[in-house]
Amino acid sequence: MRAAVMRHSKLVVDTVPDPEPGPGEVLVKTLACGICGSDLHALEHADKLVESAAESGVPFLMDVTRDIVMGHEFCAEVVDYGPGAMKAHAPGTRVVSMPLAMGPGGLQGVGYSNDYPGGYGELMKLSELFLIPVPNGLPTEHAALTEPMAVGMHAVAKSRFEQWDAPMVIGCGPVGLAVIAALKLRGAEPIVAADFSPTRRALAAKMGAHVVVDPAQTPAIEAWREAAGARPAVIFECVGVPGLLLQVMRDAPREARVVVAGVCMEEDRIRPMIGINKELSLQFVLGYAPDEFAGTLTAIAEGKIDVAPLVTSRIGVGGVPAAFEELANPEGQAKILVEPWR
Amino acid sequence: MRAAVMRHSKLVVDTVPDPEPGPGEVLVKTLACGICGSDLHALEHADKLVESAAESGVPFLMDVTRDIVMGHEFCAEVVDYGPGAMKAHAPGTRVVSMPLAMGPGGLQGVGYSNDYPGGYGELMKLSELFLIPVPNGLPTEHAALTEPMAVGMHAVAKSRFEQWDAPMVIGCGPVGLAVIAALKLRGAEPIVAADFSPTRRALAAKMGAHVVVDPAQTPAIEAWREAAGARPAVIFECVGVPGLLLQVMRDAPREARVVVAGVCMEEDRIRPMIGINKELSLQFVLGYAPDEFAGTLTAIAEGKIDVAPLVTSRIGVGGVPAAFEELANPEGQAKILVEPWR
Repeated sequence: MRAAVMRHSKLVVDTVPDPEPGPGEVLVKTLACGICGSDLHALEHADKLVESAAESGVPFLMDVTRDIVMGHEFCAEVVDYGPGAMKAHAPGTRVVSMPLAMGPGGLQGVGYSNDYPGGYGELMKLSELFLIPVPNGLPTEHAALTEPMAVGMHAVAKSRFEQWDAPMVIGCGPVGLAVIAALKLRGAEPIVAADFSPTRRALAAKMGAHVVVDPAQTPAIEAWREAAGARPAVIFECVGVPGLLLQVMRDAPREARVVVAGVCMEEDRIRPMIGINKELSLQFVLGYAPDEFAGTLTAIAEGKIDVAPLVTSRIGVGGVPAAFEELANPEGQAKILVEPWR
Repeated sequence: MRAAVMRHSKLVVDTVPDPEPGPGEVLVKTLACGICGSDLHALEHADKLVESAAESGVPFLMDVTRDIVMGHEFCAEVVDYGPGAMKAHAPGTRVVSMPLAMGPGGLQGVGYSNDYPGGYGELMKLSELFLIPVPNGLPTEHAALTEPMAVGMHAVAKSRFEQWDAPMVIGCGPVGLAVIAALKLRGAEPIVAADFSPTRRALAAKMGAHVVVDPAQTPAIEAWREAAGARPAVIFECVGVPGLLLQVMRDAPREARVVVAGVCMEEDRIRPMIGINKELSLQFVLGYAPDEFAGTLTAIAEGKIDVAPLVTSRIGVGGVPAAFEELANPEGQAKILVEPWR
């Protein structure tokens, strides 16, 4: 099959072997797959990613010296089954799945694995048990956004969000936008969001932010104070660059809950005394639970989360390397969808 | 009055003016006052302490170029009242108080103020409203431990501790010991505690730890795993030296809640990816709420927290500078009580 392949920390477009579904697995055709900022990080910091995963006890580790087909935000179509599958979904059924597969050696991350190619290729093999059929009528490109939107749902759930809480979202890339959508779904108000990019600020407003600021003009915390007064602060750090966490802690009001959703691969510095004096909490988050993933698809299908504004471009497999370059500049793009059969 | 005074970052014993109670204030005789590790930090890092307090929006700041009488863990005796007081407690009544006073210029920290001398002096002025009489029969030296034990009660409350959680206490100085006592009061089991000092380990066992380890022999996390298996981990970091937080995050099991109760005055490094991969939370804590303070006194008075093992020495005002030196070495001492009228 044709695929965009991570090979020795470079992205190349090549023909690679078709995946062959094993016991309990399903072969699917990738219909659409979003490009995730984590994949840009992974390409740049593959060794660090694997090292920190190993150190954190993550059970599946990729071998970065061998080919990896990334892509974990997908909608696909059932083609065929491996041995011993229940064949619950007829060929042609459109499905989504958490990007996890139960392989013979244990759990694997689809798109971060040498054995389970992700959605930047034409075909994937998935665990049948993880498949969720796409509700009739939901466009494929919207179903493909289940995964990134579930990240926002999970981040808000982990913040122990309550109705009187006043949220602030730092960074309006795909993670920040997903957080805004999840906050809107909960009826949070006002939602204050900040990003240096005008395109992203416009998207933040579309996704439900009530107050959107350019931090170059107005510090986010000032806009938050004006909008939220003395309400409990829940701050979503959705950027992930060194130094930002310290700045967030400096700006945070007393007893703020800071959710760290931005992925900072490097070492970072904090000043514990600031956390202590203000009794801050930092909740690091990753991924989502199965019920959050399924619930996100339902919310999108029922029109409670409108993901349409997020898709800014569609490309074929051949366009993936250039898209990665383009995404390094946040202006202009939110979610680029890869449609491998395009 | 005679007092141990912080003067230009040195401790000196001197005669200073008696405090004069203002409106709504009470003049008290200090009966006993514990020496707190924070005071050792404050003496060493006075400028940093004030700087980070200012940056964190703490409303009361001391002027370190002027005299400060520290000491905020006290039991005292009512002597006289200022104008406009209710005089609810007769002279001679033994009282404790949160080390806060409502002065003419706003809130002040008793023992961290140029205007409100703390318990390392013979006399203090306190806000009448904050006084809590010591229940009949409770020894003064035990009542004086209300403040440090309340710190432990608060840390456990902020951890959102639940019955099935399995706690681990890193560092068995006064803060760690207070956390152990608070955990025992909640019926937590097993309580795993670690400290390099044999004296402190013995105290940890006395205060209620079920498993006590010397980290030089056995990593605390190994002892915890053996005792707690796969139960939810709540880790209390009660040391506060740079680098320890990173180590705790490295060792922590997935989804552990880390309570940062150790006061690290310096900048510290963390690796956010470790927090993200394991979805850790860090809750920084400080002090206690008024109800926690009052509840701690009640628990001590009812014999539910036995503080007797903690008092390892009693000294007069003249002995304070030497005691500060001695406390730099954790072996041998837990709580040293200053009895200014001794």
